Amino acid sequence: MAAKDLYHDTVKAALLKDGWNITDDPFTLEAGKRDLFVDFGAEKLLIAQRDNQKIAVEVKSFISASPVHDLEQALGQYLLYEDLLTRSHPDRMLYLAVRDAVYNSFFQEEIVQIVLESRGLKLLIFDETQKEIIQWLPSPT
Amino acid sequence: MAAKDLYHDTVKAALLKDGWNITDDPFTLEAGKRDLFVDFGAEKLLIAQRDNQKIAVEVKSFISASPVHDLEQALGQYLLYEDLLTRSHPDRMLYLAVRDAVYNSFFQEEIVQIVLESRGLKLLIFDETQKEIIQWLPSPT
Repeated sequence: MAAKDLYHDTVKAALLKDGWNITDDPFTLEAGKRDLFVDFGAEKLLIAQRDNQKIAVEVKSFISASPVHDLEQALGQYLLYEDLLTRSHPDRMLYLAVRDAVYNSFFQEEIVQIVLESRGLKLLIFDETQKEIIQWLPSPT
Repeated sequence: MAAKDLYHDTVKAALLKDGWNITDDPFTLEAGKRDLFVDFGAEKLLIAQRDNQKIAVEVKSFISASPVHDLEQALGQYLLYEDLLTRSHPDRMLYLAVRDAVYNSFFQEEIVQIVLESRGLKLLIFDETQKEIIQWLPSPT
């Protein structure tokens, strides 16, 4: 299994352990004639619900040789999804899920801190070994 | 020559024809210990000046099989550069350069229009055959 898909499943397991219901019903972000899950440039979002809380989660592995390239891709995808969600599903909070190993190293660098603060990304930090959620930044409402 | 580098040189030629001076002096965007031109995930910015006008140009080719993937990458890179420029070179306007063929097709789609308006990207449209600038959106000040 590709590492990319592995982390997707890890986050799914962590959400289930945290009491979330993964809604696997088709969830399509559309914009005009584009269906983002048909365009194979897009990674599938994890959609989850717990009581009245609704979230969408973009899982980013950060396993390429260039963390800055990964950051740009994650940032662009997050902000595009955020724009589309705001229009079609304004009650659903969007999170970027990253491993604790990435959060505790690369994400502490100035370049990441600047852009996270400037663009207001919400983070979900997970433990890839225990398959557990470690931290929400900020907590879902 | 790779198409990616080809467009970089095309935009450079178009800027020269438009009276800009390409300042090839080292222009380094730094953030903490990251030098974006050492990290090979980053594309080199074109830096130009005309009288008192100063610009930085990110050239994006949009030649991959997935235009949405290219859009995400271009968007993430633009917004990251914008954040860094705002801190270190607040007098320099950042532009995303795209071919007229891309601007007149993919960029007219709703998904692109939404994100361009939402995130305030500035565009430089160029004619790849004539190697000329067709339009600034908006004009540099």
